[in-house]
Amino acid sequence: MFTGLSAFPLTPLAHGAVDEAAFVHLVARLREARADSITALGSTGSYAYLTTDERARVARLAVEHAGPVPVFVGIGALRTSQVLEHADRAEQAGASALLLAPMTYQPLTEDEVFGLYRAVTEHSPLPVIVYDNPGTTRFTFSTGLYGRIAQLPGIASIKIPALPSDPESARARVREIRSAIPAQVTIGVSGDAAAAVGLAAGCDAWYSVIGGTLPAPALRLTRAAQEGRSDDAAAESERLAPLWQLFGEYGGSIRVVAAIAEELGLTSENCLPLPLQGLNDQQRARVAGVIRDLRLDG
Amino acid sequence: MFTGLSAFPLTPLAHGAVDEAAFVHLVARLREARADSITALGSTGSYAYLTTDERARVARLAVEHAGPVPVFVGIGALRTSQVLEHADRAEQAGASALLLAPMTYQPLTEDEVFGLYRAVTEHSPLPVIVYDNPGTTRFTFSTGLYGRIAQLPGIASIKIPALPSDPESARARVREIRSAIPAQVTIGVSGDAAAAVGLAAGCDAWYSVIGGTLPAPALRLTRAAQEGRSDDAAAESERLAPLWQLFGEYGGSIRVVAAIAEELGLTSENCLPLPLQGLNDQQRARVAGVIRDLRLDG
Repeated sequence: MFTGLSAFPLTPLAHGAVDEAAFVHLVARLREARADSITALGSTGSYAYLTTDERARVARLAVEHAGPVPVFVGIGALRTSQVLEHADRAEQAGASALLLAPMTYQPLTEDEVFGLYRAVTEHSPLPVIVYDNPGTTRFTFSTGLYGRIAQLPGIASIKIPALPSDPESARARVREIRSAIPAQVTIGVSGDAAAAVGLAAGCDAWYSVIGGTLPAPALRLTRAAQEGRSDDAAAESERLAPLWQLFGEYGGSIRVVAAIAEELGLTSENCLPLPLQGLNDQQRARVAGVIRDLRLDG
Repeated sequence: MFTGLSAFPLTPLAHGAVDEAAFVHLVARLREARADSITALGSTGSYAYLTTDERARVARLAVEHAGPVPVFVGIGALRTSQVLEHADRAEQAGASALLLAPMTYQPLTEDEVFGLYRAVTEHSPLPVIVYDNPGTTRFTFSTGLYGRIAQLPGIASIKIPALPSDPESARARVREIRSAIPAQVTIGVSGDAAAAVGLAAGCDAWYSVIGGTLPAPALRLTRAAQEGRSDDAAAESERLAPLWQLFGEYGGSIRVVAAIAEELGLTSENCLPLPLQGLNDQQRARVAGVIRDLRLDG
């Protein structure tokens, strides 16, 4: 279950509340496109900004509209007790697995992060995906900590940050992680620009931002990689380079993906939770140009 | 009101819930010691980890037990709508001012942070303290952004991070900030080790972690500085250097202050919210030694 393309939809807002119709439509697109899994309430799904009740509702909608596609649900929060509550609510919603990033306010030690994963795996019967996203959590996992956590019963996968773009270095890094964790724990790459390199380097999954809004090109890339057509995967990634460029320039992927969803009419304007303002008009015009040039609106 | 010593008490937990008796006792100590103000629900008060209802209750207890000492209340949250709700609840509790740090999950732009402060100052009648704490928020204010925000009606003070330890550099930095903001907006130093240098460099206030748990030495330092006895203030800071040393070594002040409060019997053991684990036994033994050596238990 923790292989292939896991697509991360936005949780769009409208007038300060979750836009349920838009969210359901995004999930339906992923079901129809046959993503291998859907991760609701990832970073792209703004989990960190939503209330416990909003998150429970979003998890339920995702499961209801995903059809046969398994749904993973992000349960991160600053306090362990809140994480456990989110785990319970995700289980009640019918989630197939939990995604957990160690959110920080006070910087955390390795022992504290290990304790968090131990608490969750002891508390919940659902498999857990370790979510390493230093750009938002400001916590950096060591390979040794991956190893300690991955030994916990219930850990199913690790979502690693972007890999080096050099294929040989990427392979070496994936081998290093692989040798530190049990065989049944899969490795999934994130950082969309690194997806083709990551899958070629031996990652089992791609935890994908763009796949949540534009599943077709993300699946083309994933299937090529899975079928051993690494050159085709690399070519698709290269074709999408103008997108990766925007991710880099505009402070991460979420604002760009939100602008794409808004531009394609998948969400209403300003679908991100304040204080996030999304892109300005000039930036949006560039996003629209890239959508046109890459024919992403088809 | 935004001058002198603002003392930041812990919000101690016991068995996963706010330990109201311990919190009230901490507040009473600050009232008796005659701190110039009390800031409840600062970073030291674990605001980021508490629910809206817990925070409203803590704010109310602080005001009820502070006597004539004005109470400032931390209202930070990741989402603007939550910040505004906390502002309302703090006002209902009788807070004299609001403390607001730009918490981040997705990194924020300067315009987004400005928009957050504008929303709060437009929404709440209470004065607002800008809380610049890059160690927890990972947002770095530019001096220009201080200036933009400080122009907003309702901004009363800026809580700046630690200053350079060299007195001349500290003075230059305070002058630079002073020249960028309106005259009525005060500047308060944080980073306890920088307090004496900061007050000597022209800061109007000390937003103090240690003052929330050990008000006596913090007030000695503050009063010396206020009375122009900079050497006495520096000597008191130098006397407390073993504490600042522990703050530096043990990943920030909150774990050390919690260990002090636990050691002095002001709170029960493990008073921080999980996943924060506090110090280990060996570290606690060193804290106990410093308490003894500096006679902080008197």
